[in-house]
Amino acid sequence: MRILGVDPGSRCAGYGVVDIEGNRMTHITHGVIATGKGEFSERLAVLFSSLSHVISEFQPECAAIEDVFMARNAASALKLGQARGALIVACTHAGLPVSAYSPTSVKQAVVGFGRAEKGQVQHMIQLLLKPPAPLKEDAADALAVALCHANHQSSAKRIAVSA
Amino acid sequence: MRILGVDPGSRCAGYGVVDIEGNRMTHITHGVIATGKGEFSERLAVLFSSLSHVISEFQPECAAIEDVFMARNAASALKLGQARGALIVACTHAGLPVSAYSPTSVKQAVVGFGRAEKGQVQHMIQLLLKPPAPLKEDAADALAVALCHANHQSSAKRIAVSA
Repeated sequence: MRILGVDPGSRCAGYGVVDIEGNRMTHITHGVIATGKGEFSERLAVLFSSLSHVISEFQPECAAIEDVFMARNAASALKLGQARGALIVACTHAGLPVSAYSPTSVKQAVVGFGRAEKGQVQHMIQLLLKPPAPLKEDAADALAVALCHANHQSSAKRIAVSA
Repeated sequence: MRILGVDPGSRCAGYGVVDIEGNRMTHITHGVIATGKGEFSERLAVLFSSLSHVISEFQPECAAIEDVFMARNAASALKLGQARGALIVACTHAGLPVSAYSPTSVKQAVVGFGRAEKGQVQHMIQLLLKPPAPLKEDAADALAVALCHANHQSSAKRIAVSA
């Protein structure tokens, strides 16, 4: 199964694609979409078109995105929300089912501890996936949410088999 | 000039299309996109695909959308933001430039008073555009933001001519 992970943000958003076959995880690509300094609607357009481009190039079968809770106030929540909306519809427009995971579940899945520091996530992703290119924090978070989705899928399968 | 107006919302979003030629305003269509009770990402997908459908059917040249300030808290701002993001990228994906107007400017443009009640906007839109079908509040707001954009365009032109 090929999974696209997305870490939403209005100034830059991380993405990562991984292949999962049984216990084997393979890094396919990762990167950060920087939205530039244009008008806000143009920045949303960049998020949508760049993620659409990643999807059409790497053909993931499903997408996973981090839930956002930590907005400082209503104004920054509005900005972050709009970015997340643009990214989600880039996935749905390409026909991908989208799952959402809380930051705590993502950290739990990758580091085994829901309150892990950002740096630990980056470190574990480096160990688990050995990406060939340097890994920025946003891209590490995106790969982490993809792995979190893989975990949830495989436990759902295990439950289905044992039931 | 054919303008698409959008009133964002995560449960339902209004849209309206008007033609503006000099002082003449013609109602083309209006409606409300109800996003149903599905998962949140599915509701965003409905917003994106329904608005994309309206754009491809009525071929507006530009879009105008209401700014959102009145979110009660960060959680509702996040929801509203995601809806607005999905609607904006439906416009940019179709190649439409998107302008944003505050609720105050929209009311000012249509009713002549920035703190007008919602009902007054609905009443004035009914008078100005004589829509053939019944007009819900969200659709009236969408038509109002389209007229607000028309006003701003024509004053921009007047300034350019007199400069």
